Amino acid sequence: MTGQAAAGQGKPDAAGGTLLHGGDLDGARAAFPGAPAPWIDLSTGINPWPYPLPPVPLDAWTRLPGRGEEEALRAAAASCYGASSAELVATASGSQALIQLLPRLCRPGRVAVLGPTYAEHARCWALAGHEVRAVERPEEAGVLVAGVLVIVNPNNPDGRRFAPGELLEMAGAQAARGGLLVVDEAFADMRPEDSVAPAAGQPGLVVLRSFGKFFGLAGLRLGIALAPAALAAALREAVGPWAVSGPGLAIATAALGDRDWIPATRDRLARASAGLDRLLEGAGLRVAGGTELFRLVEDARAPSLYRALGSAGILVRRFEHRPDWLRFGLPGPDEAWRRLAVALDD
Amino acid sequence: MTGQAAAGQGKPDAAGGTLLHGGDLDGARAAFPGAPAPWIDLSTGINPWPYPLPPVPLDAWTRLPGRGEEEALRAAAASCYGASSAELVATASGSQALIQLLPRLCRPGRVAVLGPTYAEHARCWALAGHEVRAVERPEEAGVLVAGVLVIVNPNNPDGRRFAPGELLEMAGAQAARGGLLVVDEAFADMRPEDSVAPAAGQPGLVVLRSFGKFFGLAGLRLGIALAPAALAAALREAVGPWAVSGPGLAIATAALGDRDWIPATRDRLARASAGLDRLLEGAGLRVAGGTELFRLVEDARAPSLYRALGSAGILVRRFEHRPDWLRFGLPGPDEAWRRLAVALDD
Repeated sequence: MTGQAAAGQGKPDAAGGTLLHGGDLDGARAAFPGAPAPWIDLSTGINPWPYPLPPVPLDAWTRLPGRGEEEALRAAAASCYGASSAELVATASGSQALIQLLPRLCRPGRVAVLGPTYAEHARCWALAGHEVRAVERPEEAGVLVAGVLVIVNPNNPDGRRFAPGELLEMAGAQAARGGLLVVDEAFADMRPEDSVAPAAGQPGLVVLRSFGKFFGLAGLRLGIALAPAALAAALREAVGPWAVSGPGLAIATAALGDRDWIPATRDRLARASAGLDRLLEGAGLRVAGGTELFRLVEDARAPSLYRALGSAGILVRRFEHRPDWLRFGLPGPDEAWRRLAVALDD
Repeated sequence: MTGQAAAGQGKPDAAGGTLLHGGDLDGARAAFPGAPAPWIDLSTGINPWPYPLPPVPLDAWTRLPGRGEEEALRAAAASCYGASSAELVATASGSQALIQLLPRLCRPGRVAVLGPTYAEHARCWALAGHEVRAVERPEEAGVLVAGVLVIVNPNNPDGRRFAPGELLEMAGAQAARGGLLVVDEAFADMRPEDSVAPAAGQPGLVVLRSFGKFFGLAGLRLGIALAPAALAAALREAVGPWAVSGPGLAIATAALGDRDWIPATRDRLARASAGLDRLLEGAGLRVAGGTELFRLVEDARAPSLYRALGSAGILVRRFEHRPDWLRFGLPGPDEAWRRLAVALDD
């Protein structure tokens, strides 16, 4: 990995190369021992109003998941994301698992990651022996003749977006030289019109989706890849059978097929996101980007604001290489909104 | 993979190399459309009296699992299995995931699998580019100078056992030439005195444990590897963060630390296993081996018995390369015992 690959993340920890992520409440408690409980965790981009858990039959816990249940999940995912066939779908216990696995299925070569973005892409391609470069514009990848180009769309944390047409053109160019375009759509659920998942199956295009963020069930562990049929089959084979838990299969299949909850949640998150912008801007902060699941503040006072929020028991996401950035997830309960408003006012 | 590698399994299916496993009730329903419902699935080796599910807090579903929760699970596993440290432990979403992953972390070389046994070992080492041979005695592996020797202990399906001292000697010999001994202890929970997990950390020794079988929660998806610290860390890094679901972490940490339920369940399964032997032998069948979670019948009439049981809505495990074998899991409810007794009597 190049030294500057995919800026905007933590640093390798003692365990040897694992990155720091949002959601580290234990670390926050240690750093701010006097903060009031309960902590409000705004450091991730997870919907605070989760999909209501349907009853899970006991035998989803006790039995090995059946092939039919795995196929039903793939079909529900294809349908939800607008892909033409469940044959183009592979699932794993989290999109992180797919991010870890995909590099191991590709012959080591040159990989360009459009950064700064989610740091696990660069880390995992490098771990699997690829030569990884962070690029700031897709055109630079062409100069590198990268076999694989990774784009998070919309991007985390700044919300940079490419139009589907642009991405499909890039995928075509990658395919023409035997390469891949990997589009990580972890935060794409809000705007299906911006997704390239409906084009899944096109040569050279791999789309990654994350179940847990939009559906607010990050602990369930489900990630979905959409790819040309042969690559999807190779991913399924490399993941192996029964990677997703029985309860996870049951809940996610219901959620991905829920045609009422999904649009209602898009509306709710759009309103909440606009409300968060008003709160931040009312406190004199500039919202530089983001998605409906998180907002990115760019402000020279970010380090002191991070400490003030921490002292108030509110954890937001900071970025080692961009000390002027803070990322805010959506507060859920009214009390969390109130405490955030008070802390921003101080 | 050699043509005869790891006999005793299904055959590659249309998806390209995936093996048939127990638990395929959909296939059984199709093959025996007139069978009475509900089906009794005795085709797996899963405890029919599952660990009672503790209440799972909603936030185990909604949050990403925390590092502290993953560490607590590793500590509980080390303690339950008698290993000296959580640093020797890696977890994944099922032992199958570890069986898929371990071969990818080893430089391609010669692998000997002591067979016939669980077929996924040979399949996954071969998929990762290793030269796999099935051997019938560990000494043959030496002739091959295999870098990796895989032994399932006790073995599935015949229950063949090696004493811990023998296995540790083999691990030492493997380590002396830079190799590994992989001991799959998927069915070792019944007899902790037969496990080599307490020796985890010894060079050359990798132990795989399966949470779902003894605890009767196969749908939860948790597999555990115990290995020298550096290899355990490499496994953790290759699996990546958050591979086990939040509810899975909570339930398994409680179960692995339950010092009442575990010995009581050993007693219960031992009694049930003896009862199943009496039932099978009372029907004139010879029990050739097995573990307390399944019994292996060896009888020339196995194919017709398989069909008779299927017609009665009872699925057992057959073996393509050993048509005289049938493997019976433990029935759970009294009604299942009764229906099995009637079907065997016919």
